[in-house]
Amino acid sequence: MSGNSFGKLFTLTTFGESHGVAMGGVIDGCPAGLTVDVDFVQKELDRRKPGQSSIVTQRKESDTVEFLSGIFNGITTGTPIGFIIKNENQKEKDYEHIKDVYRPSHADYTYEAKYGIRDYRGGGRSSARETVSRVVGGAIAKLILKQHGITVNAYTSQVGEIKLLKDVHDLDLTKTETNAVRCPDELIAETMIHHIEQIKKTGDTIGGIISCVITGTPAGLGEPVFDKLHADLGKAMLSINAVKGFEFGSGFEGVKMKGSEHNDVFVESEERRTENGEVRTKTNHSGGIQGGISNGEDIYFRVAFKPVASIMQKQDTINNKGEAVEMHGKGRHDACVVPRAVPIVEAMAALVMVDFLLRSKTNKM
Amino acid sequence: MSGNSFGKLFTLTTFGESHGVAMGGVIDGCPAGLTVDVDFVQKELDRRKPGQSSIVTQRKESDTVEFLSGIFNGITTGTPIGFIIKNENQKEKDYEHIKDVYRPSHADYTYEAKYGIRDYRGGGRSSARETVSRVVGGAIAKLILKQHGITVNAYTSQVGEIKLLKDVHDLDLTKTETNAVRCPDELIAETMIHHIEQIKKTGDTIGGIISCVITGTPAGLGEPVFDKLHADLGKAMLSINAVKGFEFGSGFEGVKMKGSEHNDVFVESEERRTENGEVRTKTNHSGGIQGGISNGEDIYFRVAFKPVASIMQKQDTINNKGEAVEMHGKGRHDACVVPRAVPIVEAMAALVMVDFLLRSKTNKM
Amino acid sequence: MSGNSFGKLFTLTTFGESHGVAMGGVIDGCPAGLTVDVDFVQKELDRRKPGQSSIVTQRKESDTVEFLSGIFNGITTGTPIGFIIKNENQKEKDYEHIKDVYRPSHADYTYEAKYGIRDYRGGGRSSARETVSRVVGGAIAKLILKQHGITVNAYTSQVGEIKLLKDVHDLDLTKTETNAVRCPDELIAETMIHHIEQIKKTGDTIGGIISCVITGTPAGLGEPVFDKLHADLGKAMLSINAVKGFEFGSGFEGVKMKGSEHNDVFVESEERRTENGEVRTKTNHSGGIQGGISNGEDIYFRVAFKPVASIMQKQDTINNKGEAVEMHGKGRHDACVVPRAVPIVEAMAALVMVDFLLRSKTNKM
Amino acid sequence: MSGNSFGKLFTLTTFGESHGVAMGGVIDGCPAGLTVDVDFVQKELDRRKPGQSSIVTQRKESDTVEFLSGIFNGITTGTPIGFIIKNENQKEKDYEHIKDVYRPSHADYTYEAKYGIRDYRGGGRSSARETVSRVVGGAIAKLILKQHGITVNAYTSQVGEIKLLKDVHDLDLTKTETNAVRCPDELIAETMIHHIEQIKKTGDTIGGIISCVITGTPAGLGEPVFDKLHADLGKAMLSINAVKGFEFGSGFEGVKMKGSEHNDVFVESEERRTENGEVRTKTNHSGGIQGGISNGEDIYFRVAFKPVASIMQKQDTINNKGEAVEMHGKGRHDACVVPRAVPIVEAMAALVMVDFLLRSKTNKM
Repeated sequence: MSGNSFGKLFTLTTFGESHGVAMGGVIDGCPAGLTVDVDFVQKELDRRKPGQSSIVTQRKESDTVEFLSGIFNGITTGTPIGFIIKNENQKEKDYEHIKDVYRPSHADYTYEAKYGIRDYRGGGRSSARETVSRVVGGAIAKLILKQHGITVNAYTSQVGEIKLLKDVHDLDLTKTETNAVRCPDELIAETMIHHIEQIKKTGDTIGGIISCVITGTPAGLGEPVFDKLHADLGKAMLSINAVKGFEFGSGFEGVKMKGSEHNDVFVESEERRTENGEVRTKTNHSGGIQGGISNGEDIYFRVAFKPVASIMQKQDTINNKGEAVEMHGKGRHDACVVPRAVPIVEAMAALVMVDFLLRSKTNKM
Repeated sequence: MSGNSFGKLFTLTTFGESHGVAMGGVIDGCPAGLTVDVDFVQKELDRRKPGQSSIVTQRKESDTVEFLSGIFNGITTGTPIGFIIKNENQKEKDYEHIKDVYRPSHADYTYEAKYGIRDYRGGGRSSARETVSRVVGGAIAKLILKQHGITVNAYTSQVGEIKLLKDVHDLDLTKTETNAVRCPDELIAETMIHHIEQIKKTGDTIGGIISCVITGTPAGLGEPVFDKLHADLGKAMLSINAVKGFEFGSGFEGVKMKGSEHNDVFVESEERRTENGEVRTKTNHSGGIQGGISNGEDIYFRVAFKPVASIMQKQDTINNKGEAVEMHGKGRHDACVVPRAVPIVEAMAALVMVDFLLRSKTNKM
Repeated sequence: MSGNSFGKLFTLTTFGESHGVAMGGVIDGCPAGLTVDVDFVQKELDRRKPGQSSIVTQRKESDTVEFLSGIFNGITTGTPIGFIIKNENQKEKDYEHIKDVYRPSHADYTYEAKYGIRDYRGGGRSSARETVSRVVGGAIAKLILKQHGITVNAYTSQVGEIKLLKDVHDLDLTKTETNAVRCPDELIAETMIHHIEQIKKTGDTIGGIISCVITGTPAGLGEPVFDKLHADLGKAMLSINAVKGFEFGSGFEGVKMKGSEHNDVFVESEERRTENGEVRTKTNHSGGIQGGISNGEDIYFRVAFKPVASIMQKQDTINNKGEAVEMHGKGRHDACVVPRAVPIVEAMAALVMVDFLLRSKTNKM
Repeated sequence: MSGNSFGKLFTLTTFGESHGVAMGGVIDGCPAGLTVDVDFVQKELDRRKPGQSSIVTQRKESDTVEFLSGIFNGITTGTPIGFIIKNENQKEKDYEHIKDVYRPSHADYTYEAKYGIRDYRGGGRSSARETVSRVVGGAIAKLILKQHGITVNAYTSQVGEIKLLKDVHDLDLTKTETNAVRCPDELIAETMIHHIEQIKKTGDTIGGIISCVITGTPAGLGEPVFDKLHADLGKAMLSINAVKGFEFGSGFEGVKMKGSEHNDVFVESEERRTENGEVRTKTNHSGGIQGGISNGEDIYFRVAFKPVASIMQKQDTINNKGEAVEMHGKGRHDACVVPRAVPIVEAMAALVMVDFLLRSKTNKM
């Protein structure tokens, strides 16, 4: 497996270039007997789709998933689920101008250094379009999690300098989808949208942060010492295009705390300890994970996205002969990747959670 | 592999509990023909060892590595390298008092929830003592990297609120090992040490940040889309005990930047492009990685550590019957984990780099 | 990876049911820079296709491969190669009669016992139709092997009691494709064909053996102690539908030999030892593999196939309520699977050889 | 994992050279809560030990297993089980005479071709001594299988030309351990022993076959299409030193049968179908596996072993300069490997069965 498979028991293998024939993937290890709500899968894809609002790219792609195997009469059979999403927007000529040029902070140069060849059309495999396959895999994973009472909700918590300061418990996450930037606080959402629009006018781009919370996780998920639950969540997030950082629980701020402040004290509970993790803690600086294993509290983490590299401004760079050239971005790009990345963060989190849910089934005799 | 193996081609599998017979591991996939400098391996272990200074735990463990296989006349043979580090400090009685108690922010409860049983002596498998095996694996990895001109250097860059603000290029990293806190700036180091000593006196603990820089990496390492170089570095770091966050390049601060500021412009170079990545960039917000593949610039990242959970203060908690109890920390613990974690960060980074170095050998026909 | 991926560095993941929308797969880890001869791939598929002669099934399927990714301007880019082969022959009604019945020596019962559900149309995932995806993967692998001077040739060496007794070195393997049964000895081929025709007339089926020889392998392929070259070849063959046995070199007959007869004596050579394995042995009872590693001699092995389970005769069996029922085979089936399995044996062997070729690249410093 | 790990969820990683410090391994993925009967593990090792009878090698090795981790108060904790078996018989001088010589049909040449270096003492890693670690892993696996009512029994069924013709159901397998050759038929056993003694007197060696039967397997184990139950059993057996072939169920003889004879007809049963695979078949040519998945019937297979390569006779060969030399075997070797390989076959079979038992836990929602 050369880098295009994710997960150990619930495995997603993906393929596809931005301007190739199709994107797609194979989900192997999906338990049999799951009813597949194809509408739900498609809706998840639609959340990621370009052209949903004024602040995202206006490219037109219908992004319709076609399932090819593994589902019989609407139910998973335990065999691999193959799927494709056809690419409709293949204009090879559009990309002649970047054929020999290394776009700054893109993967043009590194792919060529690695492979000696690259599909330069729209970034090829390095395009964020690759994430459509992740969203399909993640949607199937979410259907499994739903059966176990586990929910995964991500939202935009920062755009540039504009931060959502409220704690997740003070937010109404049902409002995340009500605005274009996917921030559950309407007032902050409006400011973020305005900010992105201003940035966009200048042909520039801006970064942001996505927060994610997972509820309903039973205690016991995670496989130390290397496959700690948060380590795989971190890898999952860092594998998404444009991500520069990951923190969970108290995160980077936690380093300033003392142990006496940071420790999550266990509290006595009427119900006592059960398999569902009813031991509770007073605080949750641990972010629902202790020693790499879920403790039943909410899991929460934050993911940092850099500003999109494709700017609509003139830039200096070099070509593949090492000569200085000047380039000017064109095409239809997002000024901020964060709003469309919300469903991708959720998809990757769902893949991790299902994988560890399955892995946990063999922990005890 | 149930969570105790790391790496795909250069694989470290570890075993061992804090108070069991021995810690140890198996390195599989080490290329044949490497001269093993056992003194160097032992020195790396010594860097991690307790009792090195007044600010770390005073436990006495000699931590001597014994190689059992895979090395013949001082040279690796390509067969698996088995090794052990015997535990000398096994006092079972010391731990009777925590047998039935869930220590706050430790892994007592989660291990028991997962496995239905736990080795409560010193935290068992969840103890940071587990990392001795990582340091041995990392030391072998460093010997390989040395042959390729790649260096890995970590250092303490923050303790509590005390930050080292200097950029890595303004630091003399040869000074990292000259002080107890492993901060290459002597003045800041002194302040950090003083701060840890003050915290320690109150029986409390404090968190910190370790920065790491990798130089000499050829362009082309990393296996997108899931096994991006920084994604595996992130997972490696997050798998270390007490880590709460990881960021590389511009990291979390980068979200505030505009694309026009953040993009790393390629610069014309006399030498032109070569296999060693002599295409250069003016800035390095990318942290040496673009699209998940190294570009030949320095790779740098930061790792956040929470305050140590073992405090020498009275704490409320519950026992395994769900009853409220009061506990008081005893034993010999670090007031700040960061100084001793520096060699662990380096070890894990070295393991990742060697794995990707080997994986890159099959990228082209 | 839950059983539908094969290979460690050169990985084929497949999906698809006999009567689903499409068969397909993903090849991950194919080195960049390989020119893909799509005609060759299609020809390999055509060798496996039904309806080629009177002795094989007369089902009509065009089995046209469509590549979806990983190839740009006819050359592999190092990114995953997705492909599909559409199913054209989907007649759901044809299979209503076996919906509730467990066909003897088919996988109906075991799939249902395992998954609680099965796609009963044409055997679903357990159909030998699944092997189309292996042939595509194997064809790409063969293109890589060709660049390294390695050839893989299989042929029918037994049908029922009719054996080809000649040693591989006394055969002209270019004649394998000249007859319907794929036996390079024309006289024996004719007898085999006649035998299969006779069997077919009675509505019965017959087993057979495929021999395979791999030439041009450099010394040094294979990864002991578990991933011995012949162990993975064996697994590859045993994973093909209807296979019941595998032997290499002297095989089962070798157990009767004495060590003094069986040992392959090394012989002095003018050219001396080189990287291409020019140390030679007088005999080759080892089948080109010693200690799980290729020694440069020809690798040869034999694969036993049971008679096809689908017979055109009345059979007693039970239904999924455990009741005795009588069934009568219908549809278009092979009376002997061996002729069409020859390209499948080659495909699986090629996949193994490329995987070990790539794995060997990191054996030495 | 570079070839020294076996299994996906229940993973055994081994290390050690014949004349290194120690053999050993790590079992990862063992469910928590298993009581480890260390006496049983040691007895399994003793079955494999040299010096048990006149027909096996007279080397003295105590082969005492030491568990280092993963077991607490006699019970597995779910953490990795590290273990070692110290080598006592390290006489380096004994091997000076083969330092530069390639022994015929040994792995001397291939290891050197692969790695450029070899530990020539006693065959190093390629020595069958490596299998001690497999026996330890297999013994733990057997303890798990026992809890599930699954038994694994192997026995010698052929030595040279001397065959045990009786079917497994006509044998009393409790007699296997009553004689030195491990054949459950006393009369045949005696003939085999006599034959081996005769061969030994001439300084020669002889091959043989081990049969194995697994009872009590529930229906549903095996992970098609690649990880078929018999495919992994085959790989497991072929990975044992000196093995040249594997067949299950009707095996190579089955190729001569017609489908109407070979098909295993399902029979009506009072108890009806249950999770324990109470659907039964009249015959069992399938060897308990259909479509790569167990059907609840007995699983049986046969493993072919070549004659031991170390003969006590003069042999021609070459040295590592390519020069013809003459060598004469010395040391203490088995004249027939089969008796001591019986526990190894069982160990590998047990590892496979536990792995698939664990893998099957996630097949259904």
